Amino acid sequence: MSTNDLFDSSDSVRSGRPLAHVKTAVFPGPVTLTTGGVLPELQVAYETYGELSPHKDNAVLIFHALSGDSHVAAHDDQDDPGWWDLLVGPGKYVDTNRYFVICANVLGGCRGTTGPDSINPKTGHKYGVDFPPISVTDIVDSQRMLLQSLGIERLLAIIGGSLGGLMALEWGARYPESVAGIAAIATGARMTTQALAFDIVARNAIISDPNFHGGQYYDKAEGPSVGLAIARMLGHITYLSQESMNRKFNANRNVGRKLDTTFETKFSVGSYLAYQGGKFVERFDANSYLTLTLALDAFDWGATRELLVSNMRRSMCRWLFASFSSDWLFPTFQARELVDAAIKADKRVSYCTIKSDCGHDAFLLENELPTYGGLIGSFLHNLSLDWRPHDSERRQMLNDSYGKPSKPRKVRLDYDSILALVPPMTKVLDLGCGKGDLLMRLKERGHERVVGVEVEEQLVLKCVEKGLDVVQLDLNDGLRSFSDHQFDFVVLSKTLQTIRNVELVLNEMLRIGTRAIVSFPNLGYKKYRKQLQEGHAPQTDPRPGVTWYNTNDVRFLTLSDFEEFCEHKGYKIFRKVALDAETGEIVDDNHTDNADVVIAVLGR
Amino acid sequence: MSTNDLFDSSDSVRSGRPLAHVKTAVFPGPVTLTTGGVLPELQVAYETYGELSPHKDNAVLIFHALSGDSHVAAHDDQDDPGWWDLLVGPGKYVDTNRYFVICANVLGGCRGTTGPDSINPKTGHKYGVDFPPISVTDIVDSQRMLLQSLGIERLLAIIGGSLGGLMALEWGARYPESVAGIAAIATGARMTTQALAFDIVARNAIISDPNFHGGQYYDKAEGPSVGLAIARMLGHITYLSQESMNRKFNANRNVGRKLDTTFETKFSVGSYLAYQGGKFVERFDANSYLTLTLALDAFDWGATRELLVSNMRRSMCRWLFASFSSDWLFPTFQARELVDAAIKADKRVSYCTIKSDCGHDAFLLENELPTYGGLIGSFLHNLSLDWRPHDSERRQMLNDSYGKPSKPRKVRLDYDSILALVPPMTKVLDLGCGKGDLLMRLKERGHERVVGVEVEEQLVLKCVEKGLDVVQLDLNDGLRSFSDHQFDFVVLSKTLQTIRNVELVLNEMLRIGTRAIVSFPNLGYKKYRKQLQEGHAPQTDPRPGVTWYNTNDVRFLTLSDFEEFCEHKGYKIFRKVALDAETGEIVDDNHTDNADVVIAVLGR
Repeated sequence: MSTNDLFDSSDSVRSGRPLAHVKTAVFPGPVTLTTGGVLPELQVAYETYGELSPHKDNAVLIFHALSGDSHVAAHDDQDDPGWWDLLVGPGKYVDTNRYFVICANVLGGCRGTTGPDSINPKTGHKYGVDFPPISVTDIVDSQRMLLQSLGIERLLAIIGGSLGGLMALEWGARYPESVAGIAAIATGARMTTQALAFDIVARNAIISDPNFHGGQYYDKAEGPSVGLAIARMLGHITYLSQESMNRKFNANRNVGRKLDTTFETKFSVGSYLAYQGGKFVERFDANSYLTLTLALDAFDWGATRELLVSNMRRSMCRWLFASFSSDWLFPTFQARELVDAAIKADKRVSYCTIKSDCGHDAFLLENELPTYGGLIGSFLHNLSLDWRPHDSERRQMLNDSYGKPSKPRKVRLDYDSILALVPPMTKVLDLGCGKGDLLMRLKERGHERVVGVEVEEQLVLKCVEKGLDVVQLDLNDGLRSFSDHQFDFVVLSKTLQTIRNVELVLNEMLRIGTRAIVSFPNLGYKKYRKQLQEGHAPQTDPRPGVTWYNTNDVRFLTLSDFEEFCEHKGYKIFRKVALDAETGEIVDDNHTDNADVVIAVLGR
Repeated sequence: MSTNDLFDSSDSVRSGRPLAHVKTAVFPGPVTLTTGGVLPELQVAYETYGELSPHKDNAVLIFHALSGDSHVAAHDDQDDPGWWDLLVGPGKYVDTNRYFVICANVLGGCRGTTGPDSINPKTGHKYGVDFPPISVTDIVDSQRMLLQSLGIERLLAIIGGSLGGLMALEWGARYPESVAGIAAIATGARMTTQALAFDIVARNAIISDPNFHGGQYYDKAEGPSVGLAIARMLGHITYLSQESMNRKFNANRNVGRKLDTTFETKFSVGSYLAYQGGKFVERFDANSYLTLTLALDAFDWGATRELLVSNMRRSMCRWLFASFSSDWLFPTFQARELVDAAIKADKRVSYCTIKSDCGHDAFLLENELPTYGGLIGSFLHNLSLDWRPHDSERRQMLNDSYGKPSKPRKVRLDYDSILALVPPMTKVLDLGCGKGDLLMRLKERGHERVVGVEVEEQLVLKCVEKGLDVVQLDLNDGLRSFSDHQFDFVVLSKTLQTIRNVELVLNEMLRIGTRAIVSFPNLGYKKYRKQLQEGHAPQTDPRPGVTWYNTNDVRFLTLSDFEEFCEHKGYKIFRKVALDAETGEIVDDNHTDNADVVIAVLGR
């Protein structure tokens, strides 16, 4: 890789010049903001992609991040690249052949929507420091006004990453009836203290720049370009990860690119930062940077779990959250807090931590596109299926790539038996749900609520493809996301033997569910005993090539062990179904000898 | 916690005033630096604690970090606090009743040792930009000159954290015969790209400050205090962790302290940063900041594993490395790289990742003091025992707190059997060595080299207390730290059954050792079979209260399973010892039935 290649990033394609295809909605004022400020007039710059359906039920609103704009995608081959071209376009995950996509520049920004560098119609001069402070709520409100002006009362979905994710949260609680589903990516309920601290240092660099002139620099020869560039350099560090920075810059660590700059260019990463800082000041306004980061930093969707849950309760949409493992600007624990709140508030929610070493920027990059794109695409598709009954393409869609006709189902005696134990209409949580086969059968039977928990990223994606609600969690960490008695049945199907924290998981199951259904291989089964008699450890894992040293099974128990465990813990066994999966029969007598799999229904 | 409490930190106790007890060594020049620069004169400011022994064999040199100085500890109750008072003092981990401790201000600093704000004797004015660039090597050389002037040819130990750790590395390779042991804490072979990037932004803030005047600000009314304060704010963020920042500032997030500052004080973390930035400029010189961070950033002890190993090979000391799990300025993977190199270079090395949520600063804080202090204290003590044969306190030390007489040993038939299988004088690696009992017996038998691997932090500490070389690793991650054929024997004693990655670990054992010795519970043992016959899973874990759901055992195998596995993998079983640990006897016939533990010697 040459040093020059390092400078390409999704961001560096943006120039300062005006974009084609930008439309503008003007709202006469005065517009009163939640901060108490008043705007004499509001202008919102936006772009649209695709066609609004006759029922106006295919609109998808995309929120950009801090330094983005309305140009989410290129409109044609001649057009400038968009910041999310990977995701948005004809035939892409957010398919503009099917959806009507809208993206607007944020209030307080500097790319066409009213902000500090707009002309104040009252004075004929740029607002500068007279631009009032704004909140994320005000940004959301301005885009709500835009939608109403377009005659769109309800969105199929909102998608937002980073700052866009905060806006999505706020929208969900503020305009609950106006959106069917929200996908919030690489975001959190509020900035971490660390992220806040970086914003503060960035703002200090801007306001300390002697060319800032207290924000009144528009009529000066020079603006606070040094301070803004330093702010941007800092931002860039937080968008990348340790790993991605090492990968990008370590090979040519000491080779800085020659640049016309007053900043340090000794190291490759130094010249990269100097370059990015310099480019940014050409297209971004320092007052906008201050206004937007202050709005971002003041945003607080809930400092405590209770506040988060109460905000989440106001929402009425389905939620999709995704975070990236190496994102340290919005670390995964923040997404988990949101997911926990959604679960507590009994919202339909899916969640995935996407393994990535690309840091916060991962949501804009190609590396993990199949996963985050797949999640978003499937989420949209299933919203469409569920929420657009009069859409003529519905039947067609059922047969398209996201909804291929299912293969003939393998007979699964254990699933049949579990299904027989679960009364219709009950709420069911399936722990270790895999690719969602049991959940799908429950869903088709019309259960009130079926939710899955799965640890493997790709299996979570498969569940979301099926339109299931699934949350990525490691059972060994416990299930504090779920409330007491939140489900009627909690199922642990052939998963007990793979869990290290058996006591914790079973305790959690009976906290969350009225009944727990547990199926596990019975080590007492005559074939297993015979294997040991003949000198071999029992082979409870039937997969070919899998044996003692490479099985996922780490717990070995007999039916009696389980019964004693339940007695010891004070769990009642209400029902017990013994299966001989080899013969495909239910076992009536001498369960310990004759059953290779036991299903037990537990309660307290 | 009040907002005010938040401002206390180990650093904030330092004032700008001159310290008592500081001595100065003056070396007439010219002193030629490795960078090509020349100093007309070199002055080194230092402090000492305790008494140098008659044999001059108890000297411990401590290196300070970026913004520290010679005042590592208070000299008495009236004295200013030192930056490592927790660790250094009479009766403390670095016991100044036993050791003669020396700490000097670094070259290029601004606390008494020659630096940019010193008077250049050639001009009678402060150096300013005329101060030549320096390297970490130059810093090390200046302290070597100090030691020689004190008549100390060999140090018992060097201790350094952060920048001090880099200096310790450099010393180890540059003056190998002059030090018996080096403890390098929270450090790495070079800055990560991310850490480098933060330094670059910090320097850009300083050099862009209009009051910097290209470094010639000493005769001006004002210096680059804004730029330096911004640099310091950034530094503070990197010294803390996500968790520690949230803990410190989240409760009063929006309550900034009123300060006389031009910086933002809206948020509690903002006023903290403004306060720390403001305090720092009172006591630190911007040119020193530039000089030292440039030396730090240019330092590269090895970009590749080969270079690292070749540097490590030059050293002749024992090494102790410790890192902190939440340190993101010097992440644990960097310490691991150093440890890998030390192992590859066949150096005596111990290593521990200390679990902490305090970030980089953890090495200066009380939270994890028992662990890092314990490691350093034990390391020093054992160096003393091994390396000070004519020390009159040696016998006394053998009985003191770090070397209590061992309790009568429990009979361990399996250990006896393993010892009988290991010829004297061979090199032995013990995987999952626990608190080091087997290693200790091997060491006492005078083996050429015995090394342990253990995953539990507290067990690693126990091994270091015993003077053993132990490296903290999770076996499931593999053993790439070790070279092919580095040991004669690799032992895995009653640990196989707790490992998920059995294939990987056994493969690694036979890559690293000529022979592998593996002991494991044999599931075919008649008592285990009987247990299963009677309806219960075999209880291979003998600890009381431990059973199928809470044992650490996750792999179950019989002797035959193991033999088949070895055949399948092409491992030869050279010896096999079958034990009945219940009767305490070696089993002669029908091993599968009669042995509860099997020990096998494997080779390729």
